Amino acid sequence: MSATMEESNPPLSKKAAAKAAKKAEKTLNKQMAAAALDVEEEDPLAANYGDVSFQSLQSKEISGRKWVAVRLLDTGMKGQTVLVRGRVHTVRGTGKMAFLVVREAGCTVQCVLSVAENIVSKGMVKYVNKISKESIVDVEGIVSVPEKPIEGTSQKVEIQARKVYCISKAAAQLPLNLEDAARSERDFEKAEKDPQQGVQFVRVGQDTRLNNRVLDLRTPANQAIFRIQSQVSTLFRQFLLAEDFVELHTPKLLAGASEGGSSVFKLDYKGQPACLAQSPQLHKQMGICADFGRVFEIGPVFRAENSFTHRHLCEFTGLDFEMEIKEHYFEVLDVLEAVFVAIFDGINEKCVKHLEAINAQYPFEPLQYLRKTLRLTFAEGVKLLKEAGIIVDPMADFNTETERELGRIVKEKFKTDFYVLHRYPAAIRPFYTMPCWDDSRYSNSFDVFIRGEEIISGAQRVHDPELLTKRAIECGIEVNTLSTYIDSFRWGAVPHGGAGVGLERVVMLFCALNNIRKTSLFPRDPQRLAP
Amino acid sequence: MSATMEESNPPLSKKAAAKAAKKAEKTLNKQMAAAALDVEEEDPLAANYGDVSFQSLQSKEISGRKWVAVRLLDTGMKGQTVLVRGRVHTVRGTGKMAFLVVREAGCTVQCVLSVAENIVSKGMVKYVNKISKESIVDVEGIVSVPEKPIEGTSQKVEIQARKVYCISKAAAQLPLNLEDAARSERDFEKAEKDPQQGVQFVRVGQDTRLNNRVLDLRTPANQAIFRIQSQVSTLFRQFLLAEDFVELHTPKLLAGASEGGSSVFKLDYKGQPACLAQSPQLHKQMGICADFGRVFEIGPVFRAENSFTHRHLCEFTGLDFEMEIKEHYFEVLDVLEAVFVAIFDGINEKCVKHLEAINAQYPFEPLQYLRKTLRLTFAEGVKLLKEAGIIVDPMADFNTETERELGRIVKEKFKTDFYVLHRYPAAIRPFYTMPCWDDSRYSNSFDVFIRGEEIISGAQRVHDPELLTKRAIECGIEVNTLSTYIDSFRWGAVPHGGAGVGLERVVMLFCALNNIRKTSLFPRDPQRLAP
Repeated sequence: MSATMEESNPPLSKKAAAKAAKKAEKTLNKQMAAAALDVEEEDPLAANYGDVSFQSLQSKEISGRKWVAVRLLDTGMKGQTVLVRGRVHTVRGTGKMAFLVVREAGCTVQCVLSVAENIVSKGMVKYVNKISKESIVDVEGIVSVPEKPIEGTSQKVEIQARKVYCISKAAAQLPLNLEDAARSERDFEKAEKDPQQGVQFVRVGQDTRLNNRVLDLRTPANQAIFRIQSQVSTLFRQFLLAEDFVELHTPKLLAGASEGGSSVFKLDYKGQPACLAQSPQLHKQMGICADFGRVFEIGPVFRAENSFTHRHLCEFTGLDFEMEIKEHYFEVLDVLEAVFVAIFDGINEKCVKHLEAINAQYPFEPLQYLRKTLRLTFAEGVKLLKEAGIIVDPMADFNTETERELGRIVKEKFKTDFYVLHRYPAAIRPFYTMPCWDDSRYSNSFDVFIRGEEIISGAQRVHDPELLTKRAIECGIEVNTLSTYIDSFRWGAVPHGGAGVGLERVVMLFCALNNIRKTSLFPRDPQRLAP
Repeated sequence: MSATMEESNPPLSKKAAAKAAKKAEKTLNKQMAAAALDVEEEDPLAANYGDVSFQSLQSKEISGRKWVAVRLLDTGMKGQTVLVRGRVHTVRGTGKMAFLVVREAGCTVQCVLSVAENIVSKGMVKYVNKISKESIVDVEGIVSVPEKPIEGTSQKVEIQARKVYCISKAAAQLPLNLEDAARSERDFEKAEKDPQQGVQFVRVGQDTRLNNRVLDLRTPANQAIFRIQSQVSTLFRQFLLAEDFVELHTPKLLAGASEGGSSVFKLDYKGQPACLAQSPQLHKQMGICADFGRVFEIGPVFRAENSFTHRHLCEFTGLDFEMEIKEHYFEVLDVLEAVFVAIFDGINEKCVKHLEAINAQYPFEPLQYLRKTLRLTFAEGVKLLKEAGIIVDPMADFNTETERELGRIVKEKFKTDFYVLHRYPAAIRPFYTMPCWDDSRYSNSFDVFIRGEEIISGAQRVHDPELLTKRAIECGIEVNTLSTYIDSFRWGAVPHGGAGVGLERVVMLFCALNNIRKTSLFPRDPQRLAP
């Protein structure tokens, strides 16, 4: 039923679309005529292959057939007849043979068709050889275990195909080649080092990938990245729920400008000026004032910053938590460090295959982390840098390069890629950060680093409305935009603290990927708003 | 340290704020002078009560003391010395006695202070009697079990207080009284029925509640509602993760207008026209085209509709899932029904106390549902209505009243508050809905109802790009705004379907609450954008 799909990016006008719809009908008629021709060949096995009618994909019937997931195919199934649905990853063959590699969720299996009377017809092989890459097919056949192990597929068995039906045809011309998109960095390196071999690989650029993200996401590494991302959220949540945290959903639409920040997306809300929350900060603290004790949220965070770096996005997923503390912001760090060790352990344990898939394309060193997370004060960080000959302003924030440098020093000295820096100068933290009891130039705040990059920020918060007002004024913030927030602390407030993490950064740095766009499903940056 | 907090809603100007900050400092000095006076009284037990210094709340030290959660206090602790932190729920007393009810996360315990030499001083009782409601206090004392069971507190033990410290003082005047806000509907009914008793209760209006949501959320019923909400998300996720779904985070910032809809919030994205996603529909389907097989998302959904009803919000939390189907949209319904039975079972099992707390304020009948969910076709629904004398257009959508009526009929006939209506007329469903194979006037779609209100919509989707284009045009949608979405189906697409649910509606209807604003943490409607 699917018609000509040569054009991959047609922003259709109404007229053009109507034309396209007509064309689709014509093509359908042609296809039906072609099918009629096939029948004229009088292949006695004609029922075993061909395009499935669209009607039968419209919930026509429940046959009771069972499909097996490609990733579950193994040698234990030898001799069994199985039915799989997946994409045509590659197909190559001659008049008498066809090798069809079917891919499902990044896993691949080779299906073999060899002409044999009453089993596989010439017509069938011809049909299979013509199916375009990335089309969806149903293959039924018998599981066999080849003598020589197959290379290049994830599953170590083959399917001796008996029936092949096409469910949905992909356009003959794709905007990118999956094999190119999935090629290992190791292969590129080898080809570069040894140009005499004459091997030249096509490198699919980042924009091509992102413009055609749906295709790009089909590579084994990308399949793995987003399955790990899902696992990170799950581990984060499971840990916090077990620690008595409540999951909240705070509003993303705010009146005025949030956190007094300038880098917010503004919009018109039924005639009122509004903006998108650049973090759930204010409302999660209000959740604490509302007696929820310990709260967390996983949700989108919006930043209108013009940052063109490898680590900034205009929309990302925030993992945020906030909790009552009895005495000290170390209570927050205790939870935070335990959460992250649980996340790292969990990924290493549950995502072995996914980590392999990422490693195969983007080789990386496993993350090194301690059972008991290293905590250094900011001043100790400054001192470590000084000892290495790097002099920095002890009251100013580190720049990205200094952070990296400190990461290298810490890794060498303490054997960890994951550590905490706390007691930051107050001047470089948000207004709601609690000053230190003994020196108000410092604050009860912290950052957490993975592989020398900042990944988490957090602190004890000011819970006194007057001090909060004073701090906001000192930071040049329009206090009246914050009135409902500050009022929350007038009705009795517990000491509390919390932290915020970018989900995409966690995955990027755990796997040592070089760009946050690799770990955002459909990234949004200052220049990208689609797909 | 906390200063005068009489004003509860001061939208402070910079100047006024600066003034307030000065005032705060003055008050602080006064308080310190007052504290000095207290010392002059020379109470030998002076160290056992008083305002905690702000410095000691700035992470000054880790004492090693352990606080017990109020909800965990029980008769097994009799004779033990415990330390609790919570709010002053109520305090009443004389010169020699004080009864201080401490509340934490909606749970309450009575603390008794009775003047006795070397144990409790007059000064201490005086101090406690003066603490404003909703202030945060630390109480240390000995657990005792009263002979006559206490009424009006959730915990059945008392604390014989020995030390009371105030951590944070609430303003003396609160915008609403917690006891009024927590009063049972049963009490209002009683008072109305028997006006001769002369009991008159203050009813806290919805706007007062929502304007001061942080206070309103502290009632036991509200504490329970949002803990149940958290549980619903958890049960939804756990079920789907166990069924091999992947959690995705789709972008909320979209180019142009999503789903061709008119009721979207528009904004300027770095010079490009953009809007907020009114559902993750398009991107979750693209997730299916990207080989994730089964995906779900829990995230905010934005609707700019001018709906002033008990069941519409401008921002709510969507529980969405989408999955490959092999043959029939019943595969989606199988998952959906199982998810919801698991959610209902889970709430009934894990949230007994929370359900009691809600029931105490807002009495409701438990949800009735079947092990195997009832499925009726839309046509069968029309017929049931007809049999009851209600004639409706068989090709038009039911209105809210008809839905309610059908809910009543179904409940009577099939003994369930939860059922599925499927095979809706195609004309009243979105353009991406798959038409029925046998009659394109109908579609492979469904709605799910709880207590006669629609709570879930879903369907098999069109996975053919040409049919999708045709349907979009027929529905009057600017196809070029959908080009990246439609293109996703040009590269091979599996048949698929899914559903979307409003989290707030699930909780509202499970507990038979009368307004969705009760189950949204900080609701957003056409007239409300704060707090």
